[in-house]
Amino acid sequence: MSTDWPAYVQTLGLAARRASRQLVTLTDAARSRALDRIAAALRSQTDALLAANALDVDAAARAELAGPLVARLKLDAKKVAAMADGVGQIAAQVDPVGQTIEAYNRPNGLRVERRRVPLGVVLFFYESRPNVTSDAAALCVKSGNAIILRGGKEAFHSNQAIVGIVADALRASEIDPAAVQFVDQTDRALVPLLLKQDKHIDLVIPRGGEGLIRLVVRESTIPVLKHFTGNCHIYVDAATAGIEQQVVDVCLNAKLSYTAACNSVEHLLFHRAAADRLLPAVCAALAAKGVEIRGDEEARRLFPTSKPATAADWDEEYLALVAGVKVVDSLDAAVEHINEHGSHHTDAILTTDLRAADRFVKQVDSASVLVNASTRFADGGEYGLGAEIGISTDKMHARGPMGATDLTTYKWVVTGDGHVR
Amino acid sequence: MSTDWPAYVQTLGLAARRASRQLVTLTDAARSRALDRIAAALRSQTDALLAANALDVDAAARAELAGPLVARLKLDAKKVAAMADGVGQIAAQVDPVGQTIEAYNRPNGLRVERRRVPLGVVLFFYESRPNVTSDAAALCVKSGNAIILRGGKEAFHSNQAIVGIVADALRASEIDPAAVQFVDQTDRALVPLLLKQDKHIDLVIPRGGEGLIRLVVRESTIPVLKHFTGNCHIYVDAATAGIEQQVVDVCLNAKLSYTAACNSVEHLLFHRAAADRLLPAVCAALAAKGVEIRGDEEARRLFPTSKPATAADWDEEYLALVAGVKVVDSLDAAVEHINEHGSHHTDAILTTDLRAADRFVKQVDSASVLVNASTRFADGGEYGLGAEIGISTDKMHARGPMGATDLTTYKWVVTGDGHVR
Repeated sequence: MSTDWPAYVQTLGLAARRASRQLVTLTDAARSRALDRIAAALRSQTDALLAANALDVDAAARAELAGPLVARLKLDAKKVAAMADGVGQIAAQVDPVGQTIEAYNRPNGLRVERRRVPLGVVLFFYESRPNVTSDAAALCVKSGNAIILRGGKEAFHSNQAIVGIVADALRASEIDPAAVQFVDQTDRALVPLLLKQDKHIDLVIPRGGEGLIRLVVRESTIPVLKHFTGNCHIYVDAATAGIEQQVVDVCLNAKLSYTAACNSVEHLLFHRAAADRLLPAVCAALAAKGVEIRGDEEARRLFPTSKPATAADWDEEYLALVAGVKVVDSLDAAVEHINEHGSHHTDAILTTDLRAADRFVKQVDSASVLVNASTRFADGGEYGLGAEIGISTDKMHARGPMGATDLTTYKWVVTGDGHVR
Repeated sequence: MSTDWPAYVQTLGLAARRASRQLVTLTDAARSRALDRIAAALRSQTDALLAANALDVDAAARAELAGPLVARLKLDAKKVAAMADGVGQIAAQVDPVGQTIEAYNRPNGLRVERRRVPLGVVLFFYESRPNVTSDAAALCVKSGNAIILRGGKEAFHSNQAIVGIVADALRASEIDPAAVQFVDQTDRALVPLLLKQDKHIDLVIPRGGEGLIRLVVRESTIPVLKHFTGNCHIYVDAATAGIEQQVVDVCLNAKLSYTAACNSVEHLLFHRAAADRLLPAVCAALAAKGVEIRGDEEARRLFPTSKPATAADWDEEYLALVAGVKVVDSLDAAVEHINEHGSHHTDAILTTDLRAADRFVKQVDSASVLVNASTRFADGGEYGLGAEIGISTDKMHARGPMGATDLTTYKWVVTGDGHVR
């Protein structure tokens, strides 16, 4: 086994670039046919895939990995079928490549068009769920991009098997299999080297713990699309007469339907005029489900069993059965709190007042702003993107859930008839 | 004068963020009225502006700056009027803010919209032309962004005067004057500090020499939109019968109309089947205008007075009366050469063959790809964007000439009726 990491990494980059040059020449039909072939191969080779997965699951058991982590890692026939379905659904999406974003003629007769094109090569870091491998590969092939996959080492054999199936299907479709490459070396020394391949890689998407993401941002000379934390808020407006039950239901759903998700709610802000009516009811309902309430002074007056919130609480992404609760004097105060303490991920207002909703939507500086809906909807699937490759809390390029279209850029195509300036 | 640079820089950042929070609440009418007021003030205060400019021009003369640099620096009444006109034109553009990029209902009745919103705060580094100051300020106010301007020190007094006029006009329009701030300290120690203000600044755009841009990329923890070099190509295809004169005219225009511009052509590639007919004529016409031709072996056979090109020539952005000339065997070879040696800025094909044009447009990986037109058209003004804040050779977010729309991002606005997941 070679340990010449610089050469290894450059080979990956060069091969990905070469594959991306072929991908831009393909029709959507050719790319989608390849995806359908991948989906079929995942189904027909389920047994081999489960055998590879068993190696990872056994190793995880020996390493005494936590139960939920092993559960995320473990595949079965049903999960493989769902992976295949996901690839098939991505194949069936409208092709983002070649779309005209805008086009017009200039007074001198020059035709100017902004045309959507693939980014080129994507480097993707991610954790241990093997279905992410097939989703990411499919999104990239659909959008005409080559991808270099660096998955968690816990899923090494599963990922290797999936990428092997993908490569065979690409080859059978006369597509360069380097369109989907797998970093089959787990040495961490590779990571900084990969992140310097800015000549061959156009975008890095790191998914995982904050430590990994910070490392990538620090080391990368390639643009990074990232997602740090999800400190999400619900603001309960003054104008909530008649929707009291909705307020309780939405707050419970946002906290409890998947507490560990980045789009679960962490803090509830109540307008003073609604607090008397709604704060005790919402807090009691949450507390009944085991949620610890940490309140400011006013919240503790209205719901005396809550613990006192500290200053640090308002910046916290708990991802646990804890909620910070605060009373604010106005919508403006709520907006200011959210912009100051939130993570610009997802925040919601519950109100019957059209103008309040409008102001909240305009002024809250977050990727997703929801009106009268649970923060848990901030998700590529729920927004209709099909699979998502990640959620961006950056403002540049793509924001919020990212689907195939968000893996494209554009070029200016300008057509003249011998025009000179 | 304070030398507590960290405090100075943080004050700029905080004030810009505060101003950006006000800008998102304003209507387009309010932002455009402020711009019209700025345009009027530039006109009515021309004398004061010229007096400030005279300080810079005198200092430049004393420092024995090169003639063309002084010419770029020097304002007169006509140039000030043109600056005011530029601001007025930006005011009259269609508002990019609030545009719906896409919107649809989900099966569960949830309404999903991608709505265009300002980025927030832009930090802009630029060289010595004072009109860039008013253009950049106007583009940012139009698109609802606050801007922090760091201009070349040669134009210090001019820029300070322009920003003073802008600030007064903003104040008179009840807009926080911190929407347009000027870094009124020239100490270079400020630059790395500014580039770490990622909490308050959303985007850095450096315009200037490659050294400045590399410094910014290295030091910045804020996303950077940049433009390194413009190594632009024209490929003369086999199918050029009947457009011989156009080929000569376009090549001459692309090289000579503004040789120092980033969109001027540096290298000409001739398909072998067109080289006999066209290479000598194009090279002779260029040489007659004083252009030094550096050819590969085949080019030198066809145009014997050309100098031999070295391997380094193909990567060179001359910005001078020099052109590299090469004969290629196919369109694919031309594309490969351009993707390998070009700077992904602007490249053109001259052809009568529709399929050749199509393949070239698809496969050349550049911000602007032109068909039968001079590379010199790759410009915000020529593309109809009005003023441009820069040209991006990045692929992320914006590519090629950047106008007001490219200073925006989007947010997901999702509206339900008590929806839970």
